[in-house]
Amino acid sequence: MQIVSALPDLRAARASLSGSLGLVPTMGALHAGHMALVTRARNENDCVGASIFVNPSQFGPNEDLSKYPRPLERDLTLLKEAGVDLVWTPSPAEVYPPGFQTWVEVSDVSRPLEGTHRPGHFRGVATVVAKLFNAFTPDRAYFGQKDAQQVIVLAQMRRDLGFPLQMVVCPTVREADGLALSSRNVYLDPQERAAAPILYRALSAARAAYDAGERCGERLRAIMSEILASEPLARVDYVSAADPETLLDVESRADRFLLSMAVCIGRTRLIDNVMLGESDLFPREEQA
Amino acid sequence: MQIVSALPDLRAARASLSGSLGLVPTMGALHAGHMALVTRARNENDCVGASIFVNPSQFGPNEDLSKYPRPLERDLTLLKEAGVDLVWTPSPAEVYPPGFQTWVEVSDVSRPLEGTHRPGHFRGVATVVAKLFNAFTPDRAYFGQKDAQQVIVLAQMRRDLGFPLQMVVCPTVREADGLALSSRNVYLDPQERAAAPILYRALSAARAAYDAGERCGERLRAIMSEILASEPLARVDYVSAADPETLLDVESRADRFLLSMAVCIGRTRLIDNVMLGESDLFPREEQA
Repeated sequence: MQIVSALPDLRAARASLSGSLGLVPTMGALHAGHMALVTRARNENDCVGASIFVNPSQFGPNEDLSKYPRPLERDLTLLKEAGVDLVWTPSPAEVYPPGFQTWVEVSDVSRPLEGTHRPGHFRGVATVVAKLFNAFTPDRAYFGQKDAQQVIVLAQMRRDLGFPLQMVVCPTVREADGLALSSRNVYLDPQERAAAPILYRALSAARAAYDAGERCGERLRAIMSEILASEPLARVDYVSAADPETLLDVESRADRFLLSMAVCIGRTRLIDNVMLGESDLFPREEQA
Repeated sequence: MQIVSALPDLRAARASLSGSLGLVPTMGALHAGHMALVTRARNENDCVGASIFVNPSQFGPNEDLSKYPRPLERDLTLLKEAGVDLVWTPSPAEVYPPGFQTWVEVSDVSRPLEGTHRPGHFRGVATVVAKLFNAFTPDRAYFGQKDAQQVIVLAQMRRDLGFPLQMVVCPTVREADGLALSSRNVYLDPQERAAAPILYRALSAARAAYDAGERCGERLRAIMSEILASEPLARVDYVSAADPETLLDVESRADRFLLSMAVCIGRTRLIDNVMLGESDLFPREEQA
């Protein structure tokens, strides 16, 4: 496994790989969700590249950039064991050199949900992923459904700017009690960890109602909100039952919903989502 | 020469080309300035691609989008005779399909000069050129110095987003009387055409002063403004002697200047520029 930091070294290493390349962009602090992306990329491509970069431009001023976990040696071991060929671990100055001033903005779908609570977040995500696409020139790029709006924003960017690659979205990987895997779960103390599955319990209840015929967006949100309200440690940022193309909340009836939420458990902000109905972008979920 | 309109056809045609590819992006209405780019691309690459697309997103609401000349058959004949292998002539809907919402913004260097007078112009330019880069995946892309700020904006975009290609800038091609070739010169009536060389006369006078030792930005601008004021048909949008990296006007002394101007001759807006001193981006000018 080649590990490079400087962009010229990445380009040289990339040029030495032949056949198709699958890219797994990460911020490190790898868990089984990331490794599922690597496994899928390994199965579908001749070579696999990964990036480890905690991207400053997607963090707000009061967010957890400085305390975001960075277990680099452990991450590299995991990637090597999973058969990754090439890892890029750039410094912030490599990605954002002095004088950097170009931003990729995806307007409409960046605005609701996370966009409301994290202004500038998706501009940072879109810009760094455009750079990763140009740096690795992959044939396929792998993302987790856990960050559903991110996937939708990046799919829009890929389509609008015409990046010549395929985006592959992999299902959210969960703990046995339903908690979606996240690098931020390490922030949870034992009591908070015990409360955290409330997100997936709320999503699952709304999905059960949908499966039983419920098609009203307002009603699905009410089901989720009621369950979240039962958990004293949970503070809701938003609860949404949205059109999966516009990400705007559906007020009345629809056949497809992206259920999503951001909930603080103590000081840790967690997000989760479930897709109801047909989707071109998200994989059909394996029902428990 | 292959001529394609749909993006999938372009990708298929691109994949059929082997060896290095030089790209010449154009808005059609080709003149000897464009053809100099094609010739240079032909000399430096195994294959040459060109695009003909009058990009709506770089025109302001009161600009000349609808009347911009579109002599397509003539353009295609010229490109074929010059040995171009592949031409993309997309429709506006091919480049900006319904729901399009992703923009590339280069902030600082887009703001002065043309940016002040044509808000949104460089956002449109950067976005369409990012799309052209992704569509053709060229090894080299060719631009004329005539649009100096455009070149600076695109070089910044290429660097910041890391597009894996080289940008090549070719000298401005001029009529015998100094008028820079432009597709918009056809708008000039005979009297306006006779007045139009005033731009290059002003630039040349400032260059002569620089060559004689003048290094004061304010003084260089005064020399140009004085000459422009002598032409009754000329109405000045701006006259600049700027730092070629920031494009901000130099108030006092400097060793390098990008002299540039936008001047309306009648209803036709013309731009021109000359680089004084060393430049990494612009070619050394062949002095007359």
